[in-house]
Amino acid sequence: MRQNPARRTALLDAAIEVLAREGSRGLTLRAVDAEAQVPVGTSSNYFFNRAELLRQIMRRTRERLTPDPAALAATMAATPSPELVALLLRQVHQRMDADRSSYLAMLELRLEGTRRPELGADLNKILSAELEDNVRFHQDAGLPGDRVTIILMYLAVHGMIVDDLTVPDVLSGSAGELIDELSGRLLGNSARDTP
Amino acid sequence: MRQNPARRTALLDAAIEVLAREGSRGLTLRAVDAEAQVPVGTSSNYFFNRAELLRQIMRRTRERLTPDPAALAATMAATPSPELVALLLRQVHQRMDADRSSYLAMLELRLEGTRRPELGADLNKILSAELEDNVRFHQDAGLPGDRVTIILMYLAVHGMIVDDLTVPDVLSGSAGELIDELSGRLLGNSARDTP
Repeated sequence: MRQNPARRTALLDAAIEVLAREGSRGLTLRAVDAEAQVPVGTSSNYFFNRAELLRQIMRRTRERLTPDPAALAATMAATPSPELVALLLRQVHQRMDADRSSYLAMLELRLEGTRRPELGADLNKILSAELEDNVRFHQDAGLPGDRVTIILMYLAVHGMIVDDLTVPDVLSGSAGELIDELSGRLLGNSARDTP
Repeated sequence: MRQNPARRTALLDAAIEVLAREGSRGLTLRAVDAEAQVPVGTSSNYFFNRAELLRQIMRRTRERLTPDPAALAATMAATPSPELVALLLRQVHQRMDADRSSYLAMLELRLEGTRRPELGADLNKILSAELEDNVRFHQDAGLPGDRVTIILMYLAVHGMIVDDLTVPDVLSGSAGELIDELSGRLLGNSARDTP
């Protein structure tokens, strides 16, 4: 059967909604067809099996969570500083807020990966590469902070996102200020350093 | 029917294993009976319905993850210092390593809580109280670090635990050293401060 790239993307976006809303056991090709409002059987023309569907969902969430290049370039026009690092981390948190389904779907995939070795291996590979990409981006941009600092900030923001997605009352809206504190405490504050 | 507290605990421990291994949709009263090797129908004498089972599992994971009072008292015999904070955080990570099922079950419950408002409300309440308890414990013990520092450390260790449970290659065994760096960078290092 002829495949249409836009249709494939629409099916993956529908699958992300199903996964976020119903959990991994609720994710069937039939549920994806229903969510995408396409004839029953359509998804099975695009995804060889469930493992293949999970793999493609994972890649699609990465695409959706990648910052818009123009917006990122505008942010990076500023001089490297602890405040710019805080802004970048706030933008990671804002992307989560704007696309909760992708993050919830990724949490479902992470748990499913503990049960399916092939998916687990893919996730380990992709998320390890993503952390290395983040470290490289940070360093290439001349932003303050060594490798360990970058990793510690990634971990704190990751913990924050998991809490804000699943138990929002715990931080009750303070993520933005906590990110500023995180960056200020780990990197110093450039205003404070000015004589 | 007469209920037996030890039997109830055994059923909840079986339910934690099922939840960690199969995910929330795999958690049925029948699956708990099978895991606990008790006659079919036993769980339904202990748990009124699935919502009640989930609520009790949540409380049981909190019990299992609470440090042993004697071990905690031994740790707290040391003088308060950044190194003692690092040791306490390392012990949180070690408890995860020793009881992955409880943490995985909690992640499953967190996701299930996004779909079940009643469970979500319970989780918000319990995990908010837990964070406040941690802040109070830290401050009452005279450990270094203000409220924001304690919360930032909690978030980073939480992010670390989620990665180590679901994508262990990302940090590939460096959690212990990262915890030392986290505490050293946020609290200073007492050895370094000694003249």
